[in-house]
Amino acid sequence: MIFLKLFLCIKDEFFTILPYIAIAIIEPRSLHTLLQQPSNGFREERDTFGPIQVPADKLWGAQTQRSLQNFEIGGERERMPEPIIRAFGILKKCAAKVNMEYGLDPAIAKAIMQAAQEVADGMLNEHFPLVIWQTGSGTQSNMNANEVIANRAAEILGHKRGEKYVHPNDHVNRSQSSNDTFPTVMHIAAAMEINSRLLPNLKTLYATVHTKSIEFKDIVKIGRTHTQDATPLTLGQEFSGYSTQLAQGGTAVGTGLNTKRGFDAKIAQAIAEETRLPFVTAENKFEALAAHDAFVECSGALNTIATSLMKIANDIRFLGSGPRCGLGELVLPENEPGSSIMPGKVNPTQCEALTMVCAQVMGNHVAITIGGSNGHFELNVFKPMIASDLLHSVRLLGDASASFEKNCVKGIQANKERISKLLHEKIGYDNAAALAKLAHKEGLTLKEAALKLAVLTSDEFDQLVVPEKMIGPSD
Amino acid sequence: MIFLKLFLCIKDEFFTILPYIAIAIIEPRSLHTLLQQPSNGFREERDTFGPIQVPADKLWGAQTQRSLQNFEIGGERERMPEPIIRAFGILKKCAAKVNMEYGLDPAIAKAIMQAAQEVADGMLNEHFPLVIWQTGSGTQSNMNANEVIANRAAEILGHKRGEKYVHPNDHVNRSQSSNDTFPTVMHIAAAMEINSRLLPNLKTLYATVHTKSIEFKDIVKIGRTHTQDATPLTLGQEFSGYSTQLAQGGTAVGTGLNTKRGFDAKIAQAIAEETRLPFVTAENKFEALAAHDAFVECSGALNTIATSLMKIANDIRFLGSGPRCGLGELVLPENEPGSSIMPGKVNPTQCEALTMVCAQVMGNHVAITIGGSNGHFELNVFKPMIASDLLHSVRLLGDASASFEKNCVKGIQANKERISKLLHEKIGYDNAAALAKLAHKEGLTLKEAALKLAVLTSDEFDQLVVPEKMIGPSD
Amino acid sequence: MIFLKLFLCIKDEFFTILPYIAIAIIEPRSLHTLLQQPSNGFREERDTFGPIQVPADKLWGAQTQRSLQNFEIGGERERMPEPIIRAFGILKKCAAKVNMEYGLDPAIAKAIMQAAQEVADGMLNEHFPLVIWQTGSGTQSNMNANEVIANRAAEILGHKRGEKYVHPNDHVNRSQSSNDTFPTVMHIAAAMEINSRLLPNLKTLYATVHTKSIEFKDIVKIGRTHTQDATPLTLGQEFSGYSTQLAQGGTAVGTGLNTKRGFDAKIAQAIAEETRLPFVTAENKFEALAAHDAFVECSGALNTIATSLMKIANDIRFLGSGPRCGLGELVLPENEPGSSIMPGKVNPTQCEALTMVCAQVMGNHVAITIGGSNGHFELNVFKPMIASDLLHSVRLLGDASASFEKNCVKGIQANKERISKLLHEKIGYDNAAALAKLAHKEGLTLKEAALKLAVLTSDEFDQLVVPEKMIGPSD
Amino acid sequence: MIFLKLFLCIKDEFFTILPYIAIAIIEPRSLHTLLQQPSNGFREERDTFGPIQVPADKLWGAQTQRSLQNFEIGGERERMPEPIIRAFGILKKCAAKVNMEYGLDPAIAKAIMQAAQEVADGMLNEHFPLVIWQTGSGTQSNMNANEVIANRAAEILGHKRGEKYVHPNDHVNRSQSSNDTFPTVMHIAAAMEINSRLLPNLKTLYATVHTKSIEFKDIVKIGRTHTQDATPLTLGQEFSGYSTQLAQGGTAVGTGLNTKRGFDAKIAQAIAEETRLPFVTAENKFEALAAHDAFVECSGALNTIATSLMKIANDIRFLGSGPRCGLGELVLPENEPGSSIMPGKVNPTQCEALTMVCAQVMGNHVAITIGGSNGHFELNVFKPMIASDLLHSVRLLGDASASFEKNCVKGIQANKERISKLLHEKIGYDNAAALAKLAHKEGLTLKEAALKLAVLTSDEFDQLVVPEKMIGPSD
Repeated sequence: MIFLKLFLCIKDEFFTILPYIAIAIIEPRSLHTLLQQPSNGFREERDTFGPIQVPADKLWGAQTQRSLQNFEIGGERERMPEPIIRAFGILKKCAAKVNMEYGLDPAIAKAIMQAAQEVADGMLNEHFPLVIWQTGSGTQSNMNANEVIANRAAEILGHKRGEKYVHPNDHVNRSQSSNDTFPTVMHIAAAMEINSRLLPNLKTLYATVHTKSIEFKDIVKIGRTHTQDATPLTLGQEFSGYSTQLAQGGTAVGTGLNTKRGFDAKIAQAIAEETRLPFVTAENKFEALAAHDAFVECSGALNTIATSLMKIANDIRFLGSGPRCGLGELVLPENEPGSSIMPGKVNPTQCEALTMVCAQVMGNHVAITIGGSNGHFELNVFKPMIASDLLHSVRLLGDASASFEKNCVKGIQANKERISKLLHEKIGYDNAAALAKLAHKEGLTLKEAALKLAVLTSDEFDQLVVPEKMIGPSD
Repeated sequence: MIFLKLFLCIKDEFFTILPYIAIAIIEPRSLHTLLQQPSNGFREERDTFGPIQVPADKLWGAQTQRSLQNFEIGGERERMPEPIIRAFGILKKCAAKVNMEYGLDPAIAKAIMQAAQEVADGMLNEHFPLVIWQTGSGTQSNMNANEVIANRAAEILGHKRGEKYVHPNDHVNRSQSSNDTFPTVMHIAAAMEINSRLLPNLKTLYATVHTKSIEFKDIVKIGRTHTQDATPLTLGQEFSGYSTQLAQGGTAVGTGLNTKRGFDAKIAQAIAEETRLPFVTAENKFEALAAHDAFVECSGALNTIATSLMKIANDIRFLGSGPRCGLGELVLPENEPGSSIMPGKVNPTQCEALTMVCAQVMGNHVAITIGGSNGHFELNVFKPMIASDLLHSVRLLGDASASFEKNCVKGIQANKERISKLLHEKIGYDNAAALAKLAHKEGLTLKEAALKLAVLTSDEFDQLVVPEKMIGPSD
Repeated sequence: MIFLKLFLCIKDEFFTILPYIAIAIIEPRSLHTLLQQPSNGFREERDTFGPIQVPADKLWGAQTQRSLQNFEIGGERERMPEPIIRAFGILKKCAAKVNMEYGLDPAIAKAIMQAAQEVADGMLNEHFPLVIWQTGSGTQSNMNANEVIANRAAEILGHKRGEKYVHPNDHVNRSQSSNDTFPTVMHIAAAMEINSRLLPNLKTLYATVHTKSIEFKDIVKIGRTHTQDATPLTLGQEFSGYSTQLAQGGTAVGTGLNTKRGFDAKIAQAIAEETRLPFVTAENKFEALAAHDAFVECSGALNTIATSLMKIANDIRFLGSGPRCGLGELVLPENEPGSSIMPGKVNPTQCEALTMVCAQVMGNHVAITIGGSNGHFELNVFKPMIASDLLHSVRLLGDASASFEKNCVKGIQANKERISKLLHEKIGYDNAAALAKLAHKEGLTLKEAALKLAVLTSDEFDQLVVPEKMIGPSD
Repeated sequence: MIFLKLFLCIKDEFFTILPYIAIAIIEPRSLHTLLQQPSNGFREERDTFGPIQVPADKLWGAQTQRSLQNFEIGGERERMPEPIIRAFGILKKCAAKVNMEYGLDPAIAKAIMQAAQEVADGMLNEHFPLVIWQTGSGTQSNMNANEVIANRAAEILGHKRGEKYVHPNDHVNRSQSSNDTFPTVMHIAAAMEINSRLLPNLKTLYATVHTKSIEFKDIVKIGRTHTQDATPLTLGQEFSGYSTQLAQGGTAVGTGLNTKRGFDAKIAQAIAEETRLPFVTAENKFEALAAHDAFVECSGALNTIATSLMKIANDIRFLGSGPRCGLGELVLPENEPGSSIMPGKVNPTQCEALTMVCAQVMGNHVAITIGGSNGHFELNVFKPMIASDLLHSVRLLGDASASFEKNCVKGIQANKERISKLLHEKIGYDNAAALAKLAHKEGLTLKEAALKLAVLTSDEFDQLVVPEKMIGPSD
């Protein structure tokens, strides 16, 4: 009876076809209030190292307690990210289900499944105190999950915590290798977060930018190359560049975790059913444990998206600079009080939050790259950091995309008057007036008048006086 | 009456001389329980934008509430780091003190000082809900501090929240520019964390490594260059290399934030007294607001420390690899159950946590560099991310150094038998035996015997047979 | 008549199907000797800025000379990479061909095509002196190409340099926008280098590693997790992990530049014919000029490959460490004299060169990311750096893969004796002997004997005594 | 007689006091023409591996030839940087001088010194064909230096190449450890390049920016925070921010390589005399060989300078954007033809080159960090890459600073009319006119008129109408 080692995998086609599944993500620390008792002393738990005191109101056991004491690094803020905890719930539930088929006592198996579901629902978050900065295989968090689920399952069955009526290793971790569980939950968590949080928000942002590119399709404006005035284009075309970037980025990340992992057919199938994500078995388990190239590659896709968003946010804040002494072509929505002294000043705060997020994602990418390159022999021991940083980048990009869409892009308006004024300053009002006068007086076209007055060459005229003609290829 | 713009600064000499001040850092979220009421509805707060509903049990006001709603990015985990919140407490207390000298109603000033002290003590953390990913100047967190302190001071004086008996702007933020306060708290927070957390822990780690280098000074062992066997050295010398790295890194970060910032003499002096850190006024306020080179440089020093620690931790885990099929020269302390199947297997989990931290610090450094390089005109708007990432790196390096020292380095033992065995394998036992026999029989020195047997040249003999002689320069 | 703006594109399927085209890449600086005259003074060239002195033996014109004088940055070593120069030759040849159809004088067009072919063949490299660190649009290199080809074409037609019988702008650059040409050659150069240099070498490396995984399939060895002894696997399985990494990396980079660029149908078709690479037209020219996400993404794929290769090279050098005091499981080929003092010491120099290359590729990736994120408005002005760093990474990874394959992997031998010795040390020779004796004496199986002697549990026996059984799933 | 291991060191005070020594740096490849013979076949050279064919017109020997063949990575462009080659010349000359005192035949010693001087003068560059991507200790380049100097010294003494009349190991490399020479030349090269190239150019740039800050001290202009209009400042103050950044960066890099290295007193003294740089002996040779924290730290200082320069160059190109549709406050010098279509368009090409350089330096810093963190045991084997990337960054920053100063900053002019126009748009011309009229009519101050007309509050008036008053602290 075996289904060891189940790093999971997302099938290629999935990300592009799937109507994004809305998976409710409950906020971290929204704890199961029923479990929240006043801190009332300690109980003894045991492992092969011997007995150890554990807070009586917590479900974790001896090994979790040891890790907690041995790795006082970063504090509560650095706890293993919630999507990892929830993914442990999913994995342990599926494992119990399959173990039941292979002979695990059904009463115990069902209690495990119920307890694991509570973990998957985020109800037991407070019982997962371990930080990212622990053993590099993440197996201490696996033991944390085993211990919490075992104690909770025992309670469900009317037994006490610490008695090991349901055993963390023999029952909850049954037929799983400690080294394999963490890579598996890394993939479950990453796939769920990308699908439930990042891709839908990126898609909405894309849609809104695309809508803007249509809304602005007739607004001719000055182009800028080298930050200098250049041939005109439409504001819609400018935004179409952004939407193209977003579409490409979304596609890349959608395929970023593909064809990489997966394991025993039964467990993979159970997880696929549970998550409605197409997990399959991995091709090469040695690579799956020793390296995390799929995460490095996926992080590279996030890095590209960050590059795109940095560019877009920078453009929007510069185009919206002013109100009087900047470019002033865009009017950004006003979401908060600006300066009391400067009426009309609208700080591009959404652009600022987004560009900070982009810088962080680029930094996380370097950390993931360094971690990914330093695996040794059969096991890469930067797993918790790699997982945490990837999930951090996914969360930040997803949330920031949504915030930027809702609080900025959706409300952007074109300052048509300003755009028009800038555009026509290119030839000067006096010249424009003189041309019009001459043309009218002598019955010339504007171009003929321009050439006669020698204010413009024929080419210059075509480009500058009638910029609307210059937007596309000229033939 | 003016003492605007008070980016603070640390005097150079400080870091190297100062007996490190033990500043108690209370854990995040250890909240002022007196203020923790059950969530009981909302009250109305107002700003220039109009009215807005705020949770009744929270002290913040309208502008904080708006930021909270406009920047739903990352969740609770991404809140502005606690050292920043506490530094706001220190700044606001000092500002009130100086403002009192300049005419602020003493009753109000004293209430502000009391409320600010509560913020500085970490008692009001739950009233600072804003995330890092907000306006890039960090001024929304400044308003958060103003609002919380104003409401709390009003309560102290017997008034209700939201009435603005104590006014966030006119009283708490008095004579401060919003854009200047955040850089100031960045510097206070960074200086305090570096002095209270990083430097003491680095120093302890250095001391323990140095002690080990003395403890191991007579243990001759094989050296390794190119990962290949090389001329011998002592284990003490190997550890002396590590302690040199640590000493240099500590010195560099100690001077990393120096001679950079600071402002109005009165406020700087008040903050220096409050923190017992030598803040002085800044030379050039334009640079101080528009750029954050001091943080980029300080982060560079942290990056160097990360480089050192990565090297040291890698060496230690490789030297401790085994128990039977690795190098096995060091015995690492056993802090948790290892493999049930593999007795004697001690995973180098502290090395793993530390190297993950190092990778994260390197990634944060890239994020800080990108943020630092993208300031535009008079204001760099990556401030919250720069501050947060620097504090993150400081905290992680400080905590991980302490954990590594306590749970790993202190307990390292030399496996003398193994070290000796490896060393002497260099010439082979048979040769060694034959040499000894010949030398004894013919009354030769070992070296003469080796030359006679032609198993070694004179140079080889000096290097291999009596490695203890080869440790230092040879003359 | 227009076919402006021809950023080119590689069709998706190409990279995976195509039998890699062997494109002869002549070494830099292998100059057209016919053109190499002794430096004999200067001639005058002109542009709209006025006259300027140009070395008489060089084909470039006024604008190149100005750039040369204005950007004295980095010296000869920093010249625009040769693949860019050659790609200009291809582009200009194709443009002339299409221009001829649209009315360009056939004599001039043919001379341009001949001169451009010389550029494409690397024969005129010495006439491209401009460095990477020039205008951020790369248009000065475009003018360099125009000027060189014009002067060379004029010579072919019997005219003198500098006379502009063939005109750099009106003839050579005809119907091309300066801003568009550089992105086009970036794509041509990157696609050609990836296809001719990187992918074939990666494929060969993959094939050799795969061959080794078969060669080593029966060699059971100790596994190592956390750098500690762990359950056994075969050396072949270890190498199969490496080959899986390589296969994935190759696939990712093969699709890295896809579906992104391309332009006017006619010119794209001409370039596709010329290069035998499937260039097509770009979807959105605004994105193509303003952003370089395709390069950032492609660089991300190279970064992943670097991560893989770093891991593989590190493993190999540690597995090959010794000869006596390391792991010593692999014997690396000896390519150069090692230490005179340490016979048998073979430094893993190929691993060292490769890991240095990997670090450089990771650094280049950060530079490309920063450049890619800092485009403003209609034009990203980090183009030459982005192109140069990508080509640098491609070249280094390609060459280093080839060197590593040829000079290291191909010659790796398993040190079977050492592998076996380490493996069996796991239970100890005495135990093994006692077991065998007891089993023989009492007619027990080895396992029964082990249980009876209580030296091992049943599980331990299965894992340690008969490790060959433990390699796969256990049922 | 021993003075092994002489990693050198720069004394702290040096960098800040020293009047920068002008060391002539001859361009790469400006080869000793006397030595340049036509390629005329091969000669045989030998090492412990046996005989090998070497080009007859080249001075290198067997070990160099092997490296050349074993490391075909990157081509000629990737050769070991010239400053490293020259530093080998200095080291070998000094070593011969000291060896002569310890008994080396004076005729041979003097010939070695003469040959080494030719290497130090860059006359033998073509005989150093090895690339960066070789053994990670750089010892193959050490052998290259030994072989070239030995053959050249033999020629000087009338002997033939390859005869080993002067022996590469016994004479040229005498009393040096191969592993130690490369770290020593790394430090010599870095110190010389920083002092001769980077610091003087940074200093000149600083001086010019400072001069501009004085030149522009009376030009009041609009400030911009959040890219939005903010309170005014002077253009001189804006530039003073830049000069402060540059001063800090220069100081940091000046102390970046300090207190780190150095060795045997005699050789360090000889090198100090030769280079006029204050090299001293290193404290801990184990750290010096195994780690390169000094380079990581120095690279961190360069990274900070890159951050500063990126900010400055970005500001200048945005302030110079236009000519009509941008900010237009600065007029940048016109160094090359701009757009034929857009008269007055001056592309900020120097800013573009500089910002590309900055991105590269940031990328190199990551590569150096990765290399620095991956040393193992007694030897870091990323030395050539670390050295090369540091020298690359130094060279690029030095050259680009000079180019930016000469071709951009020096020629920047303030567009006073535009600056004034933007500034006064803040209150509007109509308001300004009405105020002036009322004030005149009723004998009011402008402020009184403003308050009466209720167009401005008192605070607004102080800030907006008389911005010159708002520049400094207001009391």
